[in-house]
Amino acid sequence: MAHHLLDQPHHDGSEQYVPAGVPRLGDVVPVRFRVPASGTESALWVRTVRDGEPRMEPARLDRSDEHERWYVAEVPVHNPVTGYRALLVEPGGYRWLNGRGMHARDVPDAADFRLTVHDPAPAWLDDAVVYQVFPDRFARSSGHEGPPAGPLPDWALPASWSDEPIGEGPGTPRQLYGGDLPGIESRLAHLQRLGVDTLYLTPVFPSRSNHRYDASTFDHVDPLLGGDAAFASLSRAVHARGMRIIGDLTTNHTGAGHEWFARALADRTSQEAEFYYWQDAEPGYVAWLGHASLPKLDYRAASLARRMIEGLDSVIARGLREPYALDGWRIDVANMTGRYAADDVTHQVARTIRATMRAINPNSVLVSEHFHDAGTDLQAGGWHANMNYSAFTRPVWTWLVDPATTLDFLGLPARIPRRDARSMVDTMRDFDSAVPWNVTTHQWNMLGSHDTPRVRTVVGSRAAVEVAAGLLFTYPGTPAMFAGDEGGLTGRNGEHARVPMPWSQIDAGGGPGWDAATFEVFRRLIALRRSSRALRQGGLRWALVEDDAVAFLRETADERVLVLAARSPWSGARLPRHLLGRGAEPENLYGGAPLDVTAHGLVLPGDGPGVQVWRLP
Amino acid sequence: MAHHLLDQPHHDGSEQYVPAGVPRLGDVVPVRFRVPASGTESALWVRTVRDGEPRMEPARLDRSDEHERWYVAEVPVHNPVTGYRALLVEPGGYRWLNGRGMHARDVPDAADFRLTVHDPAPAWLDDAVVYQVFPDRFARSSGHEGPPAGPLPDWALPASWSDEPIGEGPGTPRQLYGGDLPGIESRLAHLQRLGVDTLYLTPVFPSRSNHRYDASTFDHVDPLLGGDAAFASLSRAVHARGMRIIGDLTTNHTGAGHEWFARALADRTSQEAEFYYWQDAEPGYVAWLGHASLPKLDYRAASLARRMIEGLDSVIARGLREPYALDGWRIDVANMTGRYAADDVTHQVARTIRATMRAINPNSVLVSEHFHDAGTDLQAGGWHANMNYSAFTRPVWTWLVDPATTLDFLGLPARIPRRDARSMVDTMRDFDSAVPWNVTTHQWNMLGSHDTPRVRTVVGSRAAVEVAAGLLFTYPGTPAMFAGDEGGLTGRNGEHARVPMPWSQIDAGGGPGWDAATFEVFRRLIALRRSSRALRQGGLRWALVEDDAVAFLRETADERVLVLAARSPWSGARLPRHLLGRGAEPENLYGGAPLDVTAHGLVLPGDGPGVQVWRLP
Repeated sequence: MAHHLLDQPHHDGSEQYVPAGVPRLGDVVPVRFRVPASGTESALWVRTVRDGEPRMEPARLDRSDEHERWYVAEVPVHNPVTGYRALLVEPGGYRWLNGRGMHARDVPDAADFRLTVHDPAPAWLDDAVVYQVFPDRFARSSGHEGPPAGPLPDWALPASWSDEPIGEGPGTPRQLYGGDLPGIESRLAHLQRLGVDTLYLTPVFPSRSNHRYDASTFDHVDPLLGGDAAFASLSRAVHARGMRIIGDLTTNHTGAGHEWFARALADRTSQEAEFYYWQDAEPGYVAWLGHASLPKLDYRAASLARRMIEGLDSVIARGLREPYALDGWRIDVANMTGRYAADDVTHQVARTIRATMRAINPNSVLVSEHFHDAGTDLQAGGWHANMNYSAFTRPVWTWLVDPATTLDFLGLPARIPRRDARSMVDTMRDFDSAVPWNVTTHQWNMLGSHDTPRVRTVVGSRAAVEVAAGLLFTYPGTPAMFAGDEGGLTGRNGEHARVPMPWSQIDAGGGPGWDAATFEVFRRLIALRRSSRALRQGGLRWALVEDDAVAFLRETADERVLVLAARSPWSGARLPRHLLGRGAEPENLYGGAPLDVTAHGLVLPGDGPGVQVWRLP
Repeated sequence: MAHHLLDQPHHDGSEQYVPAGVPRLGDVVPVRFRVPASGTESALWVRTVRDGEPRMEPARLDRSDEHERWYVAEVPVHNPVTGYRALLVEPGGYRWLNGRGMHARDVPDAADFRLTVHDPAPAWLDDAVVYQVFPDRFARSSGHEGPPAGPLPDWALPASWSDEPIGEGPGTPRQLYGGDLPGIESRLAHLQRLGVDTLYLTPVFPSRSNHRYDASTFDHVDPLLGGDAAFASLSRAVHARGMRIIGDLTTNHTGAGHEWFARALADRTSQEAEFYYWQDAEPGYVAWLGHASLPKLDYRAASLARRMIEGLDSVIARGLREPYALDGWRIDVANMTGRYAADDVTHQVARTIRATMRAINPNSVLVSEHFHDAGTDLQAGGWHANMNYSAFTRPVWTWLVDPATTLDFLGLPARIPRRDARSMVDTMRDFDSAVPWNVTTHQWNMLGSHDTPRVRTVVGSRAAVEVAAGLLFTYPGTPAMFAGDEGGLTGRNGEHARVPMPWSQIDAGGGPGWDAATFEVFRRLIALRRSSRALRQGGLRWALVEDDAVAFLRETADERVLVLAARSPWSGARLPRHLLGRGAEPENLYGGAPLDVTAHGLVLPGDGPGVQVWRLP
């Protein structure tokens, strides 16, 4: 049987370890650490870094029982971001405990735990499940399934609703299916059946593509989608159902067809000319990754900030104001926004956006797109959270990928590798440890998005999708799913995966293009998450990490939930008996397998693939 | 026999991999990677991060032989600091190569290699060996050995030259031995016998302590040390011998007895009042770590910057101008300078200091004191290098510490632990990988300083000091030694280790307080370093890391040097035969042991403790 990991000291930022709420500069926060009774420490200290200099605070034993000891230390919040970690003095030396775990040697500060004075994402996001919709592909208000009717823009290649998306080549951004905002509004019942509560829409501004990341104006909603009134109506309908709606904005660039850019080109002395980076080389301006259709914005221009991100008339503000009343923005290419060559004003831009949003709706959320290492950006008090490819999507894929895959790994010139769970968990911990806990708990965890292959295609089977979804809905962070994943839609890259929702089959309860059994998996896992505060707000203790199985505890002060995910049959393992209260019985919340309770411990079954979730009273 | 590590792909910033010189923004730099012939890669790519976004550049095979393949990729220097790492596409997956080595999973960007557009430290530092002198304890010009004669300040406790330093309590900063600048000048021949060429003096400004980190003015040199004329004379004498001299400045604070602070206290509307942080709590101002004697400076005040760090009349500038003509500054508490609560202008302060220095002497060097994780600060274009406790002193100590030590570990509430070489090397790589290579090669590596116990006391034997010194003088970076370590002086903490140089015994060629054999070890290791460009400027490849022994290669385009350090007898190991040219013989440069050349490889002897250095032609 495999060895469990619960003999390690532990800390995270959840309520058992750090008091809820946002500290202010100058506050002193009691911070707790748990050490199993088998620990050999003679003392526990907390190292904080203040003004660049470490200080050691003694921790005192707060309480103990036969199984573990709890220490508490007073951590002064002296800087806006205060790093800290524990020192365990042990026979012959010491070990550090930081966000990556225990270390029997000195380590840099990057993985220290962190307290921040920055407000976290609004509380409603703790409980949210996000559902991403690509407006051209979700639903047509007309209901008809042929090529879109009516006059179409010159760039559009009309597609019938059942056409396969073009995955490569010049047709990919031009293929227009004609999904629209009234279509989405007409299908909100589907979201509620599934159990999601937050609609995230990719851009709705007019543009010259089906993805609309090349806006030609920020002043109106695309008439092809129904225009301003349809967007306002959708927002009202979403809110009327007690749901929320989040928009998507390109702060890094506009389309080359944007009205600002037209003025800038026409008159290089215009205010709009300051908005862009000009260069001698072709095409005469800096463009996103060299794509001439996407001229990059220059945030050194205060006039741009006022137009785009600052104050009540900015684009950011107008989206949050009536009649749209968005509950937040997802920021496209946030990692590059405000960065060019020697310029780097990303953190100021992010903080300005947050301040503008807070002034209109303090409960609005600001989420960045950063596919890579967002650690530094997520500590700056700008973005509340990030689309969590690095610490979730990518590592989960490497554990569950179909071994026969030929898919490239999200921009890497290599196939998605199949690796063991140790690799997955080490990667998750590495990236998670770079951000404060109150960011981790709001990160948008995804199994895929409009920019990736479909999870069903990546992992290759319904059973593996269930394991992936099991992780999505039980891991710390905000589950954010791409519309259609709940029906097992497929696609080999981002463009190819933007599959129209097959409503005729959905309405019929399934069919060749819609897997009703997968829908049921998602629906039940979302309901599971809603049924457990620990799954939404609890800490995270890894209990077991084997090649083919992982188990972890999600814990609040009053609830302990055990999650087991296996990609294949494995050896099984035993966890300490005392995780379960005396005389109590484990309650299976998902998966249906028993957790045998013996004198030697709780016996994790070695079945797989599958997901089991138990509550341990 | 132990297994060697030379079957791993390798890159560092040395001349075989990155062209010498400083790239400018917009340059494209060819960057090379070596992969042993046993590698299974089908392709090698280089990932760079530009404006926050990774890009993959293909590398092409540049040359290969039966032992290894060399790849080259073009890396655009698009941002002031450009991170990069290699991707090796291998059967079933890929691995990354970054500054910490190979990784079979995704990793954050913190340990990426880095190209920077910031000038490195001046070239003379490549070849320098720094000798740190604490002026009160080096030499008296009078030569007499009783308590210092003449009128002494009220705070001073006069000490005879042979008194043991007070290690703890209120007497430590007050004990005045009366070493002076003419005394140092009279003993420069000692430095040249040893082979060092750069004199670093801790502060010389008037103050109310023997350490002088609590300056009462920056306008004059302490008359107790001989005053302005003596400092100018010492500098001339140092330069006349072809040596260099570096000063020490507290930019973080002044003494409470400083003339600026007196004016600030007397008149809260004075310009000087802006220089400090005031608070309601006792003592009424912010002080370094709460010590009321050291009021903290506030760099939000432009007037302070002009007085202290900016322009030709600043304190920084005056030290570099005639008649002092310092070759550089070491900045005390650099990690805290410019940081307080929500304020963080450290990087601006550091860049301003560098710009001021460059304007006067482009060959001057700027070194920070940061005991901890200086990674972020060392990329900002301010400090050229750092006093390298984290990546050198501390890990070396943990490998070589006397197992019976009762010494605390530099501010930690734990004894210095004895750990294996894997722990030492992992720690070195962790901290080294956070800084660009052209910083690593100038870091001030130390075995101790005026702030630490003596290395002889830490490691407990002359033999272990030799191993430590062997690492000091062969590792990348600037060897920086504390005066007296070459004679085996002892001391259990920083204050207790500020032992006067026992000149009568030194002049006599040794004695109970001066170990002439240790002097010979230091002298020969310094000469060794001077004899080999590879030891000063070469790359670093770890060849072997066992519990009790390490071996590494230092390589330039035309020289390969193999260093073996063992703390005790060990198993021995074999390195690949092809490290040595056909028909060539290894040349022992230090230690005297043969490196047997067999058909199966080069046989590293398992002797220890000791240091062996061979040139492999």
